[in-house]
Amino acid sequence: MTTLPILHGYFRSSTSTRVRAALNFKGIDYHYEALPLREGAQKRAAYLALNPQGLVPTLVMPDGVAISQSLAIVEYLEETVPEPPLLPADPAGRARVRSLALAIACEVHPLNNLKVLNHLRATFGADDAAVAAWFRHFVAETFGPLETRLAGEPATGRFCHGDRPGLADLTLFAQVLNNRRFDVDMGPYPTIRRIHEACLEIPAFVKAMPENQPDAE
Amino acid sequence: MTTLPILHGYFRSSTSTRVRAALNFKGIDYHYEALPLREGAQKRAAYLALNPQGLVPTLVMPDGVAISQSLAIVEYLEETVPEPPLLPADPAGRARVRSLALAIACEVHPLNNLKVLNHLRATFGADDAAVAAWFRHFVAETFGPLETRLAGEPATGRFCHGDRPGLADLTLFAQVLNNRRFDVDMGPYPTIRRIHEACLEIPAFVKAMPENQPDAE
Repeated sequence: MTTLPILHGYFRSSTSTRVRAALNFKGIDYHYEALPLREGAQKRAAYLALNPQGLVPTLVMPDGVAISQSLAIVEYLEETVPEPPLLPADPAGRARVRSLALAIACEVHPLNNLKVLNHLRATFGADDAAVAAWFRHFVAETFGPLETRLAGEPATGRFCHGDRPGLADLTLFAQVLNNRRFDVDMGPYPTIRRIHEACLEIPAFVKAMPENQPDAE
Repeated sequence: MTTLPILHGYFRSSTSTRVRAALNFKGIDYHYEALPLREGAQKRAAYLALNPQGLVPTLVMPDGVAISQSLAIVEYLEETVPEPPLLPADPAGRARVRSLALAIACEVHPLNNLKVLNHLRATFGADDAAVAAWFRHFVAETFGPLETRLAGEPATGRFCHGDRPGLADLTLFAQVLNNRRFDVDMGPYPTIRRIHEACLEIPAFVKAMPENQPDAE
């Protein structure tokens, strides 16, 4: 019986990447349980008992607490293992970081994950080109204003908020990695690119990347 | 010059409903600035300066702090006006409430808001029936597991978590109201319906409903 938290995830899932990076950043050792999504492992009864939505990730703590939804997991980690912090100390700063994170978590990722792209194919007969155009449309719709905010707001530093990485950087990092799958042109987003490159210098983030997981294909 | 927070919102926007209900519930008086979305008011320069995404809601505090993304606003209100609380005190309970809220905020609402439905029409020639089917598909995909969780988990009470309303109820309430637009069959979700009815007995929630706003059509 393990005494480590168990993270049920998938190498390519960007919500799993967010949580892996948060765990690594806080120095929390965990057992990684890869779910082969292509084989439908997330819809098996044992997993649905943990996470009725059948989505990754789920974090199961040694005391049995099971948490779904990546941002809820990160907030839980922040409350139970405060150091190093992923949110600033002041409410206005925390609101800014959460707002930046939610812009990606609520406006980009939900439109562009595999189940939605598959639904487009099944319902509207979308082909590869149409699926790629859809993906790029919703990235651009949010990355444009995100670039405006990050480039223009004085609170931006080396990372989204000041000079330490945080919750907003977790989501930005994971989304930029995800964008590689559809060759998104990152030219219009120099500040996002710069922050992503800063994230790539943090070992905790690099270790969380899809290609560095045991289930990577 | 007002000394009240200003909420920029739209009567029918379910993310605006979440924030209106949170403000009312905490007894925070505010000035409501209705943005006529159909006239494109959210894309005017004055508003984009506050919210580059051009989305509602935005809360502007008397000290000038402007916050976008409804869940970031609610978390900010919770941190600055803790009573009455919208999150439980224990980290596991807080994680459960945030997970339930995010299931709606990340898996239902982003797929079903007006800009996405319009994009379906423009890109795939979706007609009214196809748009309604899309909306209902993504409601069902999440409301099914949500019903399972709320019906089966002992932490559920009169509301999503215990006997006091909170963050998860704000999102559930606003989404069920939103479902009326596409005649979603609520039959399969008795627990969600029961909690929604409990929310309808809270004056702060009723006051936040679309039909009770000055810009209601």
